[in-house]
Amino acid sequence: MADEVVLLNSWASPFGSRVRIALAEKGVKYEIKEEDLFNKSPLLLTVNPVHNKIPVLIHNGKPICESLNIVQYIDEVWRGKSPLLPSDPYQRAQARFWADFIDKKIYETGKKIWRGKGEQQETAKKELIEIFKLLEGELGDKPYFGGNNFGFLDIALVPFYSRFYTLETTGNFSIEAECPKLVAWAKRCLEKESVSKSFPDPHKVYEFVLLVNKKLGIQ
Amino acid sequence: MADEVVLLNSWASPFGSRVRIALAEKGVKYEIKEEDLFNKSPLLLTVNPVHNKIPVLIHNGKPICESLNIVQYIDEVWRGKSPLLPSDPYQRAQARFWADFIDKKIYETGKKIWRGKGEQQETAKKELIEIFKLLEGELGDKPYFGGNNFGFLDIALVPFYSRFYTLETTGNFSIEAECPKLVAWAKRCLEKESVSKSFPDPHKVYEFVLLVNKKLGIQ
Repeated sequence: MADEVVLLNSWASPFGSRVRIALAEKGVKYEIKEEDLFNKSPLLLTVNPVHNKIPVLIHNGKPICESLNIVQYIDEVWRGKSPLLPSDPYQRAQARFWADFIDKKIYETGKKIWRGKGEQQETAKKELIEIFKLLEGELGDKPYFGGNNFGFLDIALVPFYSRFYTLETTGNFSIEAECPKLVAWAKRCLEKESVSKSFPDPHKVYEFVLLVNKKLGIQ
Repeated sequence: MADEVVLLNSWASPFGSRVRIALAEKGVKYEIKEEDLFNKSPLLLTVNPVHNKIPVLIHNGKPICESLNIVQYIDEVWRGKSPLLPSDPYQRAQARFWADFIDKKIYETGKKIWRGKGEQQETAKKELIEIFKLLEGELGDKPYFGGNNFGFLDIALVPFYSRFYTLETTGNFSIEAECPKLVAWAKRCLEKESVSKSFPDPHKVYEFVLLVNKKLGIQ
């Protein structure tokens, strides 16, 4: 029986892009069901009753939630092609540590920039640059976070590059000026078809973020 | 060469207890270095420069941070005895999902009870019971979250049982009255030597929490 793979997604979500990149790396065919996050489908509320969030991967009828969890699941189910997590336990632990760091820091700090103003926004800009500098330190001189091979930590981080235009425009600063190695790495990742095909247009993301801000009453 | 395993810990930490239980399950001998969280050692700041938090496991000189990450590392390095994560990818994804849920919810909600007052405390009590009821739903009629075998998700959750006395005393409510199955499960876990030996005295934890509150200027 062929695998039935469905992804509940929202096109501008960096978390959803993680799953799309992982599936593309593994060569898995899947159907996307686009969610309206202001009017979530009964299906989404049923398959992710705890968080009510996209992305959800439904594999042969079974739902898996939370993007990093889904990427690990994909890596474990479709083992043959393009291993995503390193094979060495210590390297795996490092990759998981930094992916968790990304989840704890980037989106929340980013939101304070694209929804924020004044002092709060300035503080968030400094924090975000510090976060990116720590990640640049972890990247070092390697082509990818996974070393010579694109992998789990690259997938965890690169989707946020689609928000850089939004961050830079709303925050009026340049991430590339502060973190040129990180931006060079992101551009390197985008040369991969698995990434570029799973990547939303940064200008459309910007328009979308402004629209969401407006709906939330943020000018 | 024998493994050199050192754990930077603070005795009352549920996150540290996770690591202690996992090491005990695997039969790994280790040395504990107790940290004073109000005066952290240069070693802790060196091995966990990002978060400056315990627990840190130092295995043959290499540091691993963040408790769930450490438990997975332990499971992958000492594979032979007592597998902690399920072998099936879907079950693994479920275990990781709920462990992440625990990390996102319990400690922060708990803190609002043992440090909080009035309305905020009452809201947190209701939230905590909802969290525990969701976990009771996941447990179902199984003896352990891992099914017939004590495993990863049990290790993720059971250390918080050492805070129940603190929660119930500061919040003036009974968790057992609301979630009897969860408390029965916790007592079942405590029958295991790996858990009971890694478990701080709940009354001493309570005194410790009051002491920390006092240091923080909370009465």
